[in-house]
This record gives sequence, structure tokens and C-alpha cells, in this order.
Amino acid sequence: MDDIFGRQQAILIADVQVNGKNADIFVRDDGTIGAIGEGVRKQHTGEADIIIDGNGAIALPGLVNTHTHAAMSLLRGYADDMILQDWLSQKIWPLEAHLTPPDVYWGTKLACLEMIRTGTTAFNDMYFMMEEAARAVGEAGIRAVLSYGFIDLFDAGKREAECRATENLVRHIRSLDNPRITAAAGPHAPYTVSPDGLKWCAEFAREEKIGIHIHLSETEKEVNDCIAQHGKRPAVLLDECGILTPRTVAAHCCWLDEAECTLLGKRGVSASHNPTSNMKLATNRAMPWHWLKDAGANVCLGTDGCASNNNLDMFEEAKTAAILQKFFWNNPTLLPAQEALAMATANGARGLGLATGRLLPGTPADIILVAVHEACNTPLHNAMSNIVYSCNGGAVETTICDGRVLMLNREVPGEKEILEGASAAAADLVRRAQSS
Amino acid sequence: MDDIFGRQQAILIADVQVNGKNADIFVRDDGTIGAIGEGVRKQHTGEADIIIDGNGAIALPGLVNTHTHAAMSLLRGYADDMILQDWLSQKIWPLEAHLTPPDVYWGTKLACLEMIRTGTTAFNDMYFMMEEAARAVGEAGIRAVLSYGFIDLFDAGKREAECRATENLVRHIRSLDNPRITAAAGPHAPYTVSPDGLKWCAEFAREEKIGIHIHLSETEKEVNDCIAQHGKRPAVLLDECGILTPRTVAAHCCWLDEAECTLLGKRGVSASHNPTSNMKLATNRAMPWHWLKDAGANVCLGTDGCASNNNLDMFEEAKTAAILQKFFWNNPTLLPAQEALAMATANGARGLGLATGRLLPGTPADIILVAVHEACNTPLHNAMSNIVYSCNGGAVETTICDGRVLMLNREVPGEKEILEGASAAAADLVRRAQSS
Repeated sequence: MDDIFGRQQAILIADVQVNGKNADIFVRDDGTIGAIGEGVRKQHTGEADIIIDGNGAIALPGLVNTHTHAAMSLLRGYADDMILQDWLSQKIWPLEAHLTPPDVYWGTKLACLEMIRTGTTAFNDMYFMMEEAARAVGEAGIRAVLSYGFIDLFDAGKREAECRATENLVRHIRSLDNPRITAAAGPHAPYTVSPDGLKWCAEFAREEKIGIHIHLSETEKEVNDCIAQHGKRPAVLLDECGILTPRTVAAHCCWLDEAECTLLGKRGVSASHNPTSNMKLATNRAMPWHWLKDAGANVCLGTDGCASNNNLDMFEEAKTAAILQKFFWNNPTLLPAQEALAMATANGARGLGLATGRLLPGTPADIILVAVHEACNTPLHNAMSNIVYSCNGGAVETTICDGRVLMLNREVPGEKEILEGASAAAADLVRRAQSS
Repeated sequence: MDDIFGRQQAILIADVQVNGKNADIFVRDDGTIGAIGEGVRKQHTGEADIIIDGNGAIALPGLVNTHTHAAMSLLRGYADDMILQDWLSQKIWPLEAHLTPPDVYWGTKLACLEMIRTGTTAFNDMYFMMEEAARAVGEAGIRAVLSYGFIDLFDAGKREAECRATENLVRHIRSLDNPRITAAAGPHAPYTVSPDGLKWCAEFAREEKIGIHIHLSETEKEVNDCIAQHGKRPAVLLDECGILTPRTVAAHCCWLDEAECTLLGKRGVSASHNPTSNMKLATNRAMPWHWLKDAGANVCLGTDGCASNNNLDMFEEAKTAAILQKFFWNNPTLLPAQEALAMATANGARGLGLATGRLLPGTPADIILVAVHEACNTPLHNAMSNIVYSCNGGAVETTICDGRVLMLNREVPGEKEILEGASAAAADLVRRAQSS
């Protein structure tokens, strides 16, 4: 049975629900969706290397997590319920100071496992030692856009080093020649990167034809500091530095004003909503989803890292987004289920420049199967509602990325080794930090 | 294997984590916890009818859901993303008008199944046709406090009928003589029950020595209406009618002011926080948890019904509570993980007058086992943090209530029949409503 995992092969998913109708899905051995619909089974059974019984499942596009720090899964539960600055300076940074490349490898392995289990097939990552993240993603079989977190702290010497690190990562990822793994520039945030650093990142991304991944206006303080330091709001500053482009993903966006939302829309930026992290860290304002949407920005969804969430379940994140928007902006009709799911699928794929996110012939086969015969999907008045409001990632039973089976009937090969390796790495990391 | 389910028997849970330590738990065949600790295995192996391998699991008290309308699981996903009044008048009430006793039976069966799967062993329910709810709870094997939703709409004739319905339910539940099922008075809310109705419920509950279950200050409008109608805030009105007692569970409590919180604390009331429902229906204010806690009220947790949540997963609810409190009251240290878990366990049990909610020798054995070797519990820096922030109910692998095994290694006997019965009842209900 193990030989069906991770292989290029033609797959027939028979008798599955697609957009409320019974259908079959044929996946070619080049990893693309060949056909979807009634009767596809009859035409393609002979060509299929394996047949997956989709009876009792809903097929969805693989989910897309547009903002995370995957390796931080090693820090899951290490510190919570603290003031942001104390949390960072007393807990997170001292631990991160001891991180080694194998830690990033194991943390990213653990994160990929959790994503596969909960139906995410692509993610947008920012961290460091990203060569090790790339290795983990390559083994896991999912997609990732990887960026080195560029932080110059307004120091010219540091800036040079960050430019080199960014160039090195992009070169390394190109050398891997893995179509599932691409690089992005990762200027951390307007409050940690100088305008010169931002401009360099923008220009470099343009030349290299890669995306940009940045944090934007997570807290009120950083907005106020930006105005005090630069005399303008963060999105305006970023725009002047060339950072706002159709290939840019801006995470958080809690404190954007209406004019900044208009600007993001005009530039075609993707705004990644991270509601759980924002609530846990008490940002005190929810992303103005309706302003961004009305302005034509591409609003998508991300979990943020495991240190501030503390999981990578995009089903839970979609629910939290849908209920937080209603609650904070005081309107129970805001962000209905279907739009929350679009944020987690089609919009996310668009944000990362992927052709996935919809189940269409000719597109890469990133497909997940969600179990119907469970309490969370009973009754099935409305599948979109159940998926967003009732299910969590545990309802995913099968995950396919790029036409390769990564989880089948909740079995992921090698799971035990990943859990053990990540546990050991996390324990050792804490030991090193505490004995230093 | 099936003969281990639902039976009175002596159980040894060997090698399980309890409060961060390795221990064994011995459950007597009278349904109580006999012993907990290291070495318990050696003393009690001979007495055990069955041995459950707890290696790789964390033992917790069964969770307590202090506010729900279980049978509304049949309406899961039927209507969402609407204005409250439209949602009720166009969707929920027309469907409820066609509810029959078998619908309440199947809806409650489905709810109990979901609760068993997600680690809840006791719940506080308010609905109608509650004799059927009692039948479903009896079969499921969990605990419930059942109340008839008393709604007189300020009409003396209706009030008499509601008094009789309340008396009948209490009499019926007494006649069942099932220690797991008790009755409560269920005056729906200050805006649906006259002061005379409230007084009758308070007096009846006192005489019968039963609890009271009521909705309190969910929306700003009902508070303003109460002041306009009665010249006082809702909690003050309830207190004058005798409703605020140590056996009262008041659900929602979003719009209490500080003086009302002090009053609830003084009376020893249990306040049930229902954060997901409040966010989804855009109540625009989160329960003032810190005021209630400081006043000495017993703050516990509930999911509300499936029509406004849309699941009964108390793990997800604890996380939503912890992050909503931080977000709304703008303080990332509010409601830390340990207190969120206490709300879902010990505080909930106290609210329902149960001796469960803690793992102590001599108390009833309501025990759940949470899987450790999963991504959500890796690494295990802090079990409390993982349980609240990272896991959902899918991490529960075994559920024991009153010393009876209801789920073992994720198997619940009869699950398929319950899902099919509830699906059929829900479809038929919609058909009847649409053809009328």
C-alpha cells in the first residue's frame, strides 16, 4: 500500500461530491486534473493507476496558508498569555537564539505534517535557515513559497548581510529545481527594515520575478511609530519603496485605514488575514476585510506561526475569520462561509501565484477529501457552512498535492518518525537555551 | 469487544499523564474513581475488569457544556450569515414550528454523539419536547441537566401552560430515576418571560431543589428594552424575581455592567460564556470575564446550540473564549489556558451541581483521554497550553462517563445508525417545512 504515496501516477477519485454534485475526478500522471464530472469514471478507469473511493466525501481544493513561520511549531505552547514584548524578549527570542538548522528542519517537517493532516497543500513561509525549510518541504511533498526574514534594524552593515542572505536563499531554491518550492523576498516589516532595505527587496523581487512577503500594521503601536518616524502611514511608506505589488502578500493588516485599503486594492496586493494570532496577541482591531474587498485587494487567510496560534488548522482559521469579522465590525452578514472558504483556497492560491485553489481541468491536482459521515457534517444542509463553521481539519481524510497522494484515509507515511524527531529537537532546544 | 461499552465495570487506566505526571487511574465498578497515582496499577490490576492502555494520553475530567440546545444540531448549517431577527423569523422559527418529538430525539442523539467524540460528558440543555431529549441522553450514557424553555411572552394564559409543562418535565425526569439526568427550571430570558413567570420559576426551583437555566443580556437591545420596560437592568430584575441563586446558570452575559457582575458574584451565580455564538451573531461585546471572576461569580463555558456555533466542540470553545477575552478587552494576559480549561471542567461541574470536573478519588469517573502522539500535542512543552490553544475535540480518543466506557480509541458503538437517523430526520423536517 505504501507505494501509492508520493508517486506520480494517474488517480481516479470515484463518486465524490464536487460543488454539491456527485462526480468523479481524474488526475493525470503529470499531476494535473484531467477531468471532473459525472461519467468521468467510465472514460478513465482504464487509465488510472489507483482508484480512490470518494463515496462519503466532499472534494475541495487543497487549502493555502498565506502567512506562517512553519519552524515555530517547535515552540508550540512554550509561552502564552503574556504581553507581546515580554513574550518576545523573555521567551521567544532567547529560544530562537539557540535554533540550529536541524531545528528548522524538524520544525518545518512537523508543520508540513500538520498541514497535510488538516488539508493545507501550500503555504507562504518567512523564517531563517530556510534551506532547511526547503529540505523539509521537499520531503513532505507540499508547496511552499519560502522567504528569508530580512531584518536590518536600520543599520547599513546589517542590510548588506540581509541582502546577501536573501540572494543566497533565492539562488539555493532555484538550484533545487522543484516546481513546488519557490522563493520570495521577505522584508520583515516597516518597523524592522529601513526604507533602503525595503527598496532593495522591491527591486530584487522585480528583477528575479519573485513575490514579496511582509508584515503590515499588526499593532497600533507600529502604525503610530511609523507616523512619528516617517511622517506617513505604513502602507504609504511601503508603496513609496515599491513594495506594494500584485505579487506581494501583506500579513495581518489589522490597523489599515480606509485610504490604505484603497491603496492595497489599487496595487493588487494580497492581504493575509490572521485572526487567531491577532486575537491571542490582543491587537485590538480586526483587519478591515470589507474595505479591502471593496477596494479590490485579494484577501486571503493565514494561521501565523504556531507560537501565536497555536496550530496550523486552516479550517479553524476560516471559522475564526468569519466570526471575528462579524463580531468586530458588528454585522452578522459579513464574511459569509463561501467567502471565508474562498480566502482559504482560490484567493490564497492567487496570492502565492499558484494555479491551484480551484478544482478545474488542466490545473495542478491539489485536492483534499473531507469526510461526510461524521457529526460535523451531519446533517448536510449546506456543505460550505459545515466546512467553515462546523468542521475542523480533522475532517480531512485524504490529501493530494500536485497529483501525489500525501495522506490516504488519514494515514501519512512516516508520521511517527516526524513526531519523534520534532519532539526531540524541541526538548533539546529548550535544554540548550536553559543551560546557556 | 463491544461488551466493554456502556457497562458498569472496574477499569484500570494504566500509564497515563495526570497533571503532568505519569500515573494510573483505577475506576471502581460503582462508577467512582478509586485511586489515582503512581503504582495504582500494582494494587488494582487484579480487580480490574478491563485495562485501558493510557500510554501516550493525557487524562482530563470530562468537559462540561453549560449552555446548549442539543436538538438544534438538526439545524446545523441550515442558515448562517444573517441578521439575528431575519435568521430567527425567516429560517429557525419556521423550521422549529415543524419539529416533532422524534426530531428532538434524533437531534439530541446526534448532539450526544458529537459530545462523546469531543470529550464532553455533561451538558446543560434548554429546549422543548424534552422527554425525548431525556430518552436520547439516557441511551447515550452522558449526563445532562434538562430544562423546558419557559416562554410566556407576558401572557397569563401562556404562563399557566408553561408552568404545567415545566412541572411535567420535572416529574417525568424524576420518574426516570437516572442519576445522570436531572431537571432544571428554564425561564428563557427576561425579555420572553414575565416577572410573574420568573417568580414562579424561582419558587418552583427552590421547592423542587433543582437548578435554573436562563439567557441573560446576550444583546444590547434586550438590555435597553428591559430598562425601558422595567426601569432596571436585566440582572437586577432577575434578582428581584429570585432567579439569581447558586444553582442558576445564566448564559451569554455579554452586556452586564460592573454592578450586575458584582450582583451575580454575590448571589453565587454561574455565568456561562458562549464566545463562538456571540461572535457569529455579532453581539458586539464579550462577556466581562474579569469583572465576573473578580466578583466571585462561577464563570463556565458553553457552546450554545448548533444553529449558532455550529458545533459542540468544547476544546474549540475554550480556545475561542481565551482569545476573545484577550482581543475584546485588549489584554493578552486575560483568561490564560489553565483558567479556560477550568471553565470547561471544574467550574462547569460546579455550575450544574455535579461532583465531576476534577480527577479525584471518590468522585464520579467522568474521564477523557487526549492523544499525545499527534501534531497538535507535539512538542509537549505545556499540556494545558496545547489542550486549549492547539488541540480540538478530535484529539480525544477515549471517553468515560460515570465509570462507563462510551468511546474507546475513537470507536463509539452505534455511530452509523445515529448519523443516518439524524440525517433522515433533518431532511424530513426541511421537506415538511418547505411543503407547508
